[in-house]
Amino acid sequence: MVATQQSPLATLRQTSNTRVDATLAALFDSRPAVAPRLEAAMRHGLLVGGKRLRPLLVYMAGKALGADAKALDAPAAAIELIHAYSLIHDDLPAMDDDDLRRGQPTVHKAFDEASAILAGDALQALAFEVLASTAHPRLSHLIHTLASASGRDGMVAGQALDLDAVGGHPDVDALAHMHAHKTGALIVAAVRLGGLVAVAEDDPRLNALTRYARAIGLAFQIHDDILDVTGDTVTLGKTSGADAARAKPTYPSLLGLEGAQRKAQSLIDEAIAALAPLGEGAAPLADLAHYMIERDH
Amino acid sequence: MVATQQSPLATLRQTSNTRVDATLAALFDSRPAVAPRLEAAMRHGLLVGGKRLRPLLVYMAGKALGADAKALDAPAAAIELIHAYSLIHDDLPAMDDDDLRRGQPTVHKAFDEASAILAGDALQALAFEVLASTAHPRLSHLIHTLASASGRDGMVAGQALDLDAVGGHPDVDALAHMHAHKTGALIVAAVRLGGLVAVAEDDPRLNALTRYARAIGLAFQIHDDILDVTGDTVTLGKTSGADAARAKPTYPSLLGLEGAQRKAQSLIDEAIAALAPLGEGAAPLADLAHYMIERDH
Repeated sequence: MVATQQSPLATLRQTSNTRVDATLAALFDSRPAVAPRLEAAMRHGLLVGGKRLRPLLVYMAGKALGADAKALDAPAAAIELIHAYSLIHDDLPAMDDDDLRRGQPTVHKAFDEASAILAGDALQALAFEVLASTAHPRLSHLIHTLASASGRDGMVAGQALDLDAVGGHPDVDALAHMHAHKTGALIVAAVRLGGLVAVAEDDPRLNALTRYARAIGLAFQIHDDILDVTGDTVTLGKTSGADAARAKPTYPSLLGLEGAQRKAQSLIDEAIAALAPLGEGAAPLADLAHYMIERDH
Repeated sequence: MVATQQSPLATLRQTSNTRVDATLAALFDSRPAVAPRLEAAMRHGLLVGGKRLRPLLVYMAGKALGADAKALDAPAAAIELIHAYSLIHDDLPAMDDDDLRRGQPTVHKAFDEASAILAGDALQALAFEVLASTAHPRLSHLIHTLASASGRDGMVAGQALDLDAVGGHPDVDALAHMHAHKTGALIVAAVRLGGLVAVAEDDPRLNALTRYARAIGLAFQIHDDILDVTGDTVTLGKTSGADAARAKPTYPSLLGLEGAQRKAQSLIDEAIAALAPLGEGAAPLADLAHYMIERDH
């Protein structure tokens, strides 16, 4: 008999994924669709798998500060809705022009471009609808956190900077600036949303979480760049070598593969140091930081 | 000397436009842009003119129920941000493929497709950010109203239904169903947002405003279809005859031009009847209803 042992992090991930997937599925199963093809495209973009990293961060950060899991369901779902919409739009022919995502055809491939644009638009609206359903006393801060991390000061700005940079020669600072917006802002928003469910907006532990998230967010992206060089298409679930093929500046292209790996490791050290004020409850966040640069997809 | 006289409606429109344009301009002038080209595309989509009908409805409905103009600035700006984003995305080559909007090149023509997709995405996020900034006691209802009217149960669903219908043969009911979502939902949301700033969500006057808005929303759309037949490109600020050119089902194509005009007029009668419970304060809303089917662009 083989004993199956799961790490505490794997157990937490499983619980988090189960919760967020149930919340997301209920958004579609609880009502008839006005536009069925649109909702099929939304589900395709949302439910075909994926790491569900941002919801996990919402749950972990929230629990570290004492929030109830139930109160974290809406923010966890909301941030995944934003993430899913952004992937659908990023994959469009006018943007990154990707055919594969999470091992499946991208939404514009499985449906069509118009459906992909609209599915993304509707997922974004749904994110705010879900978040507003909480009627949390700090709802104004929750909405502001998600909206500003998603838009022209965050994720969308990062995507715009990234497109501007294709074929250009940004240095490491410019690359970090782009990533801090493109992927970092939403990762920071995830921990802040979780934290804000539990504590007031001026609680200093929110700043500790922010420093942690900034560091793992950049490490996550550097590791993504590394996987694009070292990984294979099947394991990644997306086309490997895509960055090099489109002459996209990356950490490995600027620092070399080992330099990029060292940079990612030092960011993880920073992230773990930032957690000090949170005490024991932050142990899962430290485990997750290590995982960030150990994953193979 | 020629005396210049302005109708009360024209004066209200001017005040409303001045307020909302100032609120929108301040969103861009108050801070440096993270991604300047992105923000230029956002401004292009937002600030090149337009009727600003939805903000006007927010102000009129809110004032009819006793709200302060200042408290209506954020909802008025938020709904215009949603409207502007939807126009940018609707004009994309994969959607309606329009080159002209409000007499100007559409955003993907003036910039590029990727910038147009991102500008729309960022304007949507900004709408919720602006609305959340009010910290209104009924913020949860305000956000829910805007999000559900914008997304898969409202505007985006309508656009999806509209794309599905091109080349098909919907009847008048199917056309009304599509318009109720594509343009109607946001017009209803405008009056409800204005109303919700002043009164609680179970106030019966909100239902009166909703009936009013449904009727003028459809009349507005029928009149748009009529203008596409009778108007010219310069006055409209967009390509006239575009519906017929792409074999799009419209009210004139289903009911004839006179049948469509009669339908629009009867909806305006309905709208004005719906205002009865609101008393004298609703007089400007009645004036606006008449204007809906008198405008030439």
